[in-house]
Amino acid sequence: MTSPIFATFAFQSQPGRFRVVAQRAICGEPLRAAEYLEVHERHHLAHSIPPAATTPLYTLRGTTGHVRYVTRAEQEVLAKAPPVLGRPEATRASLIPIRKTDAWWGLAQDQRRQILEERSRHITIGLGYVPAIARRLYHCRELGEAFDFVTWFEYAPADAPQFAALLAALRATEEWQYVEREVQVDLQRV
Amino acid sequence: MTSPIFATFAFQSQPGRFRVVAQRAICGEPLRAAEYLEVHERHHLAHSIPPAATTPLYTLRGTTGHVRYVTRAEQEVLAKAPPVLGRPEATRASLIPIRKTDAWWGLAQDQRRQILEERSRHITIGLGYVPAIARRLYHCRELGEAFDFVTWFEYAPADAPQFAALLAALRATEEWQYVEREVQVDLQRV
Repeated sequence: MTSPIFATFAFQSQPGRFRVVAQRAICGEPLRAAEYLEVHERHHLAHSIPPAATTPLYTLRGTTGHVRYVTRAEQEVLAKAPPVLGRPEATRASLIPIRKTDAWWGLAQDQRRQILEERSRHITIGLGYVPAIARRLYHCRELGEAFDFVTWFEYAPADAPQFAALLAALRATEEWQYVEREVQVDLQRV
Repeated sequence: MTSPIFATFAFQSQPGRFRVVAQRAICGEPLRAAEYLEVHERHHLAHSIPPAATTPLYTLRGTTGHVRYVTRAEQEVLAKAPPVLGRPEATRASLIPIRKTDAWWGLAQDQRRQILEERSRHITIGLGYVPAIARRLYHCRELGEAFDFVTWFEYAPADAPQFAALLAALRATEEWQYVEREVQVDLQRV
């Protein structure tokens, strides 16, 4: 949990592990079109560059890490229902990069926590969709990327309606008023 | 405040803006010896690499950003006494990279806040030394650097004892039990 993973999401025209099924801008600019996505995960950022054999059209990078808002009590609940990535039946995936406004980043820690959980129930909403919808959060604001976060979701085709419901619930929250760019890339495991 | 600054601290043998006066490991491994330090600040990480004209012996990189623990009430106090970098009389500087333990990063947000401020008074202690000791925090855990943070301090020679007192106060706290590597590099503006 505590050792960060450095991921590079490489959008490319050559076949990769995932095929892009749909891409749409929920808010702000879309991403450039691409047919495939490859995910490179490393334990050091310097090694996170895709191998020279592939020539990605563009990449998004992110780092996993420690929890930013979760309390000890919530952590104990989360530990009982950890998201499991790589389940054989979870052949659908979605990559959702998000950028929040300067107003969000100018708020103090307790103000952001108030909006994120006490008023928007972000953590609680996500828990309601475990284990069907597995997700992993990557931070990229500190890397100078165009987005602040990338969230990776995995689910079985039969759980696609649940996934849509999760996104609708989150996008209806007060927290989402601070989202200024959001793109949804739906993927199919090849 | 909210637009991150990407800094590269370049240790080099060629003259730079700062001369290394002393370097010592407070905890864990020291850094390699170097005579000078140059600081490169950019608004994008990709541009944070030192110009080709210099050949640094090694670099440390970090990103400024939003507050991680400060509450709204504390933010209002801090706003009344903002640290001022670049004061003409502040010819002394210190660069202190720190790495915290896995145990620290495994704690939930509320547990880390409890240790950092409610029990260790990290924010309050720092406030007691403003404006004499100006500081800026850079995050580097997400960049995969060998350290989690780099703190940059600036002060006048006459305030060196105050600076030493600030460090002693912080190092005596419960929070510092989670520090597994700390190096202090004292600098003189050239």
